Amino acid sequence: VATATRRRKHWGWGFEDQQPSREQVGGIARAVTDRLGFAVDEVEEPVPLDAVELPEPRLKPPKRFAELFSADRYDRVAHSLGKAYRDVVRGFRGEFPNPPDLVAYPESPEDLDVLLSFCADEGAAAIPYGGGTSVVGGVEPRMRDRYPAVVTLDLGRMDRVLEVDPISRAARIQAGATGPRLEEQLREHGLTLRHFPQSFEYSTLGGWIATRAGGHFATLDTHIDDLVESIRAVTLEGEWESRRLPGSGAGPSPDRMLIGSEGILAVIAEAWVRVRERPGFKLSVGVAFDDFAAGAEAVREIAQSGLNPSNCRLLDALESDTTSAGPPGKALLVLGFESAHHPVDEPMSIAMGAARAHGGEPGEIKGRAGEQPGPAERREAPPAAEPGDDPVDAWRHAFLFAPYLRDSLVACGVLSDTFETAITWDRFPDFHAEVMELAERAVAAASPTGRGKPRVSCRFTHVYPDGPAPYYTVLAPAWRGDEVAQWDEIKAAVSDAVIDAGGTITHHHAVGRDHRRWYDRQRPDPFADALRAAKRDLDPQGILNPGVLIDP
Amino acid sequence: VATATRRRKHWGWGFEDQQPSREQVGGIARAVTDRLGFAVDEVEEPVPLDAVELPEPRLKPPKRFAELFSADRYDRVAHSLGKAYRDVVRGFRGEFPNPPDLVAYPESPEDLDVLLSFCADEGAAAIPYGGGTSVVGGVEPRMRDRYPAVVTLDLGRMDRVLEVDPISRAARIQAGATGPRLEEQLREHGLTLRHFPQSFEYSTLGGWIATRAGGHFATLDTHIDDLVESIRAVTLEGEWESRRLPGSGAGPSPDRMLIGSEGILAVIAEAWVRVRERPGFKLSVGVAFDDFAAGAEAVREIAQSGLNPSNCRLLDALESDTTSAGPPGKALLVLGFESAHHPVDEPMSIAMGAARAHGGEPGEIKGRAGEQPGPAERREAPPAAEPGDDPVDAWRHAFLFAPYLRDSLVACGVLSDTFETAITWDRFPDFHAEVMELAERAVAAASPTGRGKPRVSCRFTHVYPDGPAPYYTVLAPAWRGDEVAQWDEIKAAVSDAVIDAGGTITHHHAVGRDHRRWYDRQRPDPFADALRAAKRDLDPQGILNPGVLIDP
Repeated sequence: VATATRRRKHWGWGFEDQQPSREQVGGIARAVTDRLGFAVDEVEEPVPLDAVELPEPRLKPPKRFAELFSADRYDRVAHSLGKAYRDVVRGFRGEFPNPPDLVAYPESPEDLDVLLSFCADEGAAAIPYGGGTSVVGGVEPRMRDRYPAVVTLDLGRMDRVLEVDPISRAARIQAGATGPRLEEQLREHGLTLRHFPQSFEYSTLGGWIATRAGGHFATLDTHIDDLVESIRAVTLEGEWESRRLPGSGAGPSPDRMLIGSEGILAVIAEAWVRVRERPGFKLSVGVAFDDFAAGAEAVREIAQSGLNPSNCRLLDALESDTTSAGPPGKALLVLGFESAHHPVDEPMSIAMGAARAHGGEPGEIKGRAGEQPGPAERREAPPAAEPGDDPVDAWRHAFLFAPYLRDSLVACGVLSDTFETAITWDRFPDFHAEVMELAERAVAAASPTGRGKPRVSCRFTHVYPDGPAPYYTVLAPAWRGDEVAQWDEIKAAVSDAVIDAGGTITHHHAVGRDHRRWYDRQRPDPFADALRAAKRDLDPQGILNPGVLIDP
Repeated sequence: VATATRRRKHWGWGFEDQQPSREQVGGIARAVTDRLGFAVDEVEEPVPLDAVELPEPRLKPPKRFAELFSADRYDRVAHSLGKAYRDVVRGFRGEFPNPPDLVAYPESPEDLDVLLSFCADEGAAAIPYGGGTSVVGGVEPRMRDRYPAVVTLDLGRMDRVLEVDPISRAARIQAGATGPRLEEQLREHGLTLRHFPQSFEYSTLGGWIATRAGGHFATLDTHIDDLVESIRAVTLEGEWESRRLPGSGAGPSPDRMLIGSEGILAVIAEAWVRVRERPGFKLSVGVAFDDFAAGAEAVREIAQSGLNPSNCRLLDALESDTTSAGPPGKALLVLGFESAHHPVDEPMSIAMGAARAHGGEPGEIKGRAGEQPGPAERREAPPAAEPGDDPVDAWRHAFLFAPYLRDSLVACGVLSDTFETAITWDRFPDFHAEVMELAERAVAAASPTGRGKPRVSCRFTHVYPDGPAPYYTVLAPAWRGDEVAQWDEIKAAVSDAVIDAGGTITHHHAVGRDHRRWYDRQRPDPFADALRAAKRDLDPQGILNPGVLIDP
């Protein structure tokens, strides 16, 4: 697919030519009623691009490098919002109150340097932008009124794999490469990064690093953090480039200071990342449990066993039922092992034994033991593939299709959002009970009545020896035209619940602007002082992505 | 062993009552000639404590909390130096030019807070001190002349396991707990941290965290970094305490900013660390290779296989011969798997297959498959146990006994030191050839002739999918009385070699004061700016461990 010839929707998910038809949305509306139990009184249409009201740009591109900029209507609108429910619903309704004045498309670290200098000269806020898939307000120019101009730096033209080291299994990749772009280039070398967040299609390596994205692996290399070997970034004070090292003990890790820095210190230009051979050995199985708690105990044993499965996602019964993943009314553990080196039958068998010991009923093991990846395997994480009839496929399909579906849910008047965290095992049962209760109460209080009972479900996205990362999905009838207020009320309540009960405000969605209030309660104060001082030193004007993470 | 009744030597390794007898040192002298080929012209005696010249303390403890302080001769001398060869040889000769004025023994985070305030009021430098086993000048008051006083904060009285969470497999431990102290307390719960650096006996949890210590595991959890769940530290601006979280994506990790900070930002008071059940399944084997390069290729395959052995140490032939670990003239891979959960026969068998495919000849597999830890297993990492007759035991014994042996080598006029790094696999062969050549040349040039040929050997201490951590050992006839100059010359040459060839100045020995020159060439400049700004904010007077890592 030549992405250059296609344009992404100016709101919501996917390309413009992927909009579902009126009939398809009608089918989704019927499914909303049949499967979720929500009455759909009307299917709305999104506000078209040309009907969007847009303030004039307050800044002109400099003549010297005008070719790097766009002040085009589409570009400015498309870079105005991220991809939270809050963003999608505003985009749907044509509300883009905070567009950037200019969108710049750097093609090299040198361009980035020039662009940052330009922003500094103009006092303009500079927002690094990868795939724009932030669900926490990470790319939204909400600071627009406090700066004479806002320039969004879209790294999309920096999308190449620059170098591959097949000996060390590492690759130097530009920050703007999306999941499919970098996998496509790595495939020529028989290698893969295997970092498949839900946003895989559009999100970028630089964005993953800046936000500590969570990926494919349920254990061990759960975050992109673990796959970063070195980073090259551009600051207002020059280049920040770390050495390529497999490990080091030389002071606090420079990379770890950039990983998760959300663009406040530097713009990530490229990184050496750890890649691997494509796994020829893959087994997966769905294991049903009578309840989530029993499944959680099985997951705890597996997470502490050292078996390190690549997949170990536990869905509660409601979530499993919503995605038709497992037997009705049961919690479902999606368990998978993979290797490029050797068969994985033994660890699978040990893990299934552990699951059985906690009351789990495994289904049929699916997978390949040894053949080479075939054509069907070539396309990683197919976003719209039809689900197979086994639980693992069903879950995978629902996972990848969710962002597409959400756009239609907005049209049908359904609020759909997620929040996620991590907590140690000892506190998990009480934490989960408390968060579920407060979330259900808050969603019910914030949502219209009489159109169906809101649903709050949970799954584990990643697990650690010392605790799981629970991920909660909220589905509720929306207050038509008042969705943002409804969302804000729910968001505040569930975030309070998570922070009060000892969790983190985010396991892998980042902080951005939407999580700030709770992040500020979470991080140690002297650490915030240290980070603020570091930012002030590198960005004395405070122009780098102002408003995320920390105030100057 | 009630450590309170014993005193550690004021120089070198071990307790005062562990000094080898004249006869034992004589035996070592003969072994030096027989095994290393170095002529020993004289066995010297260390300068006794009362013959050490010591300046008067420049500061009096405040009356209010005088009981926290010591100005005792022994205490001040014993806290003057770390445990590098450079330190041991100076201690041996009675050279302690930079003693702290006072040694303080805090018993709580509150004491630390009071002590830091006292230092700030006096403008005194404050040096956090765990086991004092730094081999990079990390605890030496070399800044003495630039401050009105120096106070060393010895955390030795903060040595308790405060809380154990058996569900999440985590424990809250005070920073001053040594390896044996914390293992002894965890053992009551059937748990273990399994962090066994060579300094295990004396080094402390806080020291490990502050210096990013490398431990037991050759793969995965190679550094203490990976075992830290949260940290409580005391800054001059108040407490820095992170949440207990199994994982998080909320901004740059606060813990990762303290891990490796070497006392320049805060004093670590305690930490929640990830512990585990004691492994009942353990297998190990020695695999001989004709040459180091073939062994390295086998290790690369194993490191990239996802098998994640707990031990995967490759010794070159010289190092294997020196420690009598393997068959003469062969490189030796010490390979081990362990689990508390399930047998490890299959991964061992797959890894041995990989080793064989690269020409390795495995010896007999040793270990237990399933029985409970017996009395022999109770004492982790016995430092002076007699070696068994198999290669794995021999290597382990040599590893743990090395610091004891070194004291006697100083008496015999043998220079003995190590340097270590990490490098990606693609660069490793050239890197290793270059570093070996330059090291051998530098050692030969710096050492006296006619007393035997210096030896430079190498092993891998830790390995990663993208590269090994090579560890070099230097043994040479010493310039009697001029050892420090000899060492400094060698240190400069090998450090240049490592940095010029693309490595890190340290994989797990830290930066301290001795590695500063090369660290400054390694770290990204804007990162140094950021770290400096952070330090200035938290420690405006620049009193926290001045001279390590970075200048204000």
